[in-house]
Amino acid sequence: MVINLIGAGNLATSLAVALIRAGHKIPFVFSRTMSSAKDLAEKVDARPVCKFDDIDVNADLFIIAVKDDIIRNVACDICERFPQSLLVHTAGAVEMDIISSKRKGVFYPMQTFSKRRIVDFLEIPIFVDSNMSEDLDVLKTLAKSISNKVVSCDDQQRKILHLAAVFCCNFTNHCAAIAYDILRNHSMEFDVMLPLINETIKKINKYPPKMIQTGPAVRHDNNVMNTHIGMLNNMEKKLWADIYKLMSKSIQS
Amino acid sequence: MVINLIGAGNLATSLAVALIRAGHKIPFVFSRTMSSAKDLAEKVDARPVCKFDDIDVNADLFIIAVKDDIIRNVACDICERFPQSLLVHTAGAVEMDIISSKRKGVFYPMQTFSKRRIVDFLEIPIFVDSNMSEDLDVLKTLAKSISNKVVSCDDQQRKILHLAAVFCCNFTNHCAAIAYDILRNHSMEFDVMLPLINETIKKINKYPPKMIQTGPAVRHDNNVMNTHIGMLNNMEKKLWADIYKLMSKSIQS
Repeated sequence: MVINLIGAGNLATSLAVALIRAGHKIPFVFSRTMSSAKDLAEKVDARPVCKFDDIDVNADLFIIAVKDDIIRNVACDICERFPQSLLVHTAGAVEMDIISSKRKGVFYPMQTFSKRRIVDFLEIPIFVDSNMSEDLDVLKTLAKSISNKVVSCDDQQRKILHLAAVFCCNFTNHCAAIAYDILRNHSMEFDVMLPLINETIKKINKYPPKMIQTGPAVRHDNNVMNTHIGMLNNMEKKLWADIYKLMSKSIQS
Repeated sequence: MVINLIGAGNLATSLAVALIRAGHKIPFVFSRTMSSAKDLAEKVDARPVCKFDDIDVNADLFIIAVKDDIIRNVACDICERFPQSLLVHTAGAVEMDIISSKRKGVFYPMQTFSKRRIVDFLEIPIFVDSNMSEDLDVLKTLAKSISNKVVSCDDQQRKILHLAAVFCCNFTNHCAAIAYDILRNHSMEFDVMLPLINETIKKINKYPPKMIQTGPAVRHDNNVMNTHIGMLNNMEKKLWADIYKLMSKSIQS
């Protein structure tokens, strides 16, 4: 397929590399700043642009991979210039209808992206949606060309997925960040935690997380919990003790 | 070394298997219930006992791997019968001096254990302590025979490690458990989260967690956060919305 890519951030970067590897063509990479557009365009042999007027090749598809709050305006601009094209966004928490064009859809790869790590798309679930069944088929075919796990889902389901992802990814990472700070504040290295974290995640890959819950809260070990809360109360970040109490209460509920 | 093992739970099971593999001998496995003692004793060719009086072989070392709140009494009982032996416990949150014997110590492998998964000890950090320098050397040598990462640390440091481990292991697992419930309550499978979780953890293995934090909170994306909180407010567990708000606040602080 011929795909113009709008955006040159973390997701756009990994996605562009995966699309090119699968044999698709990306004539243009658009970003509001030319340097970002250039960085990504170089990787995928595209032309970098920072004005929509410079896009002079129509495409089967425009993939809009920009910040949630500018999707609407970006889609409007593209729609004015290419009213017959299929436009999709890549956001978990944004409704499909924020795109005003006739042919629209969603192409949501559920993963945490960073420019410094180009991730392998094969294992990433991609959730697709469209207002037209022919376009949904197009998106499914495209998604299957880069991923083994393609699911069609609507706005409501995608919102639930995105919410669950915040717990699985953002909040787990923050738990590790708190542990990192606690250890560093006491002159210890975070690295000693890695085997523990890795084993925890290996188990989550095999069993429902509730079944493998360990620790003082699930044992109702009040001695240890009170000791921990006392230690946290003496630390600089008062929120940590609140988090400890709330998470423990939730584990026990 | 000749080691009598007191306890037949999750940690005792993985530890016993590692010790035998490293060439140590375990004449006795003690548990308060004979069936537990037998289960583990069979795995390591030991004699199962459920009364201390039945232990008729002294050992270089008694490893007490029982619930935190019975360590003191168990240590007392062993000390009465074998007053010259070195006694160690395996707990992160318990002081060494809870053991009343003359020769005592701590042998704390930092990992989450379950009987259904015998874990490889080589990568597990083991934290050792003793009131006598000769015994500390003995414990270090023993620990090094099963692990590549042996560190000596005192009660205070071990308590900090244990607290950090609660955040890294127990609370990350609970975040996944909440995601699991949210998805199941909306007829979706948790499996689609696994690539996301695994990638998050791969990054934690390479970068400080704060540096790789993603999601609506760190982006200060109030639209998405308010949508999520609204969704959580409509769900059965009211604590989930509280956790979302508190974790987001902590990420932003």
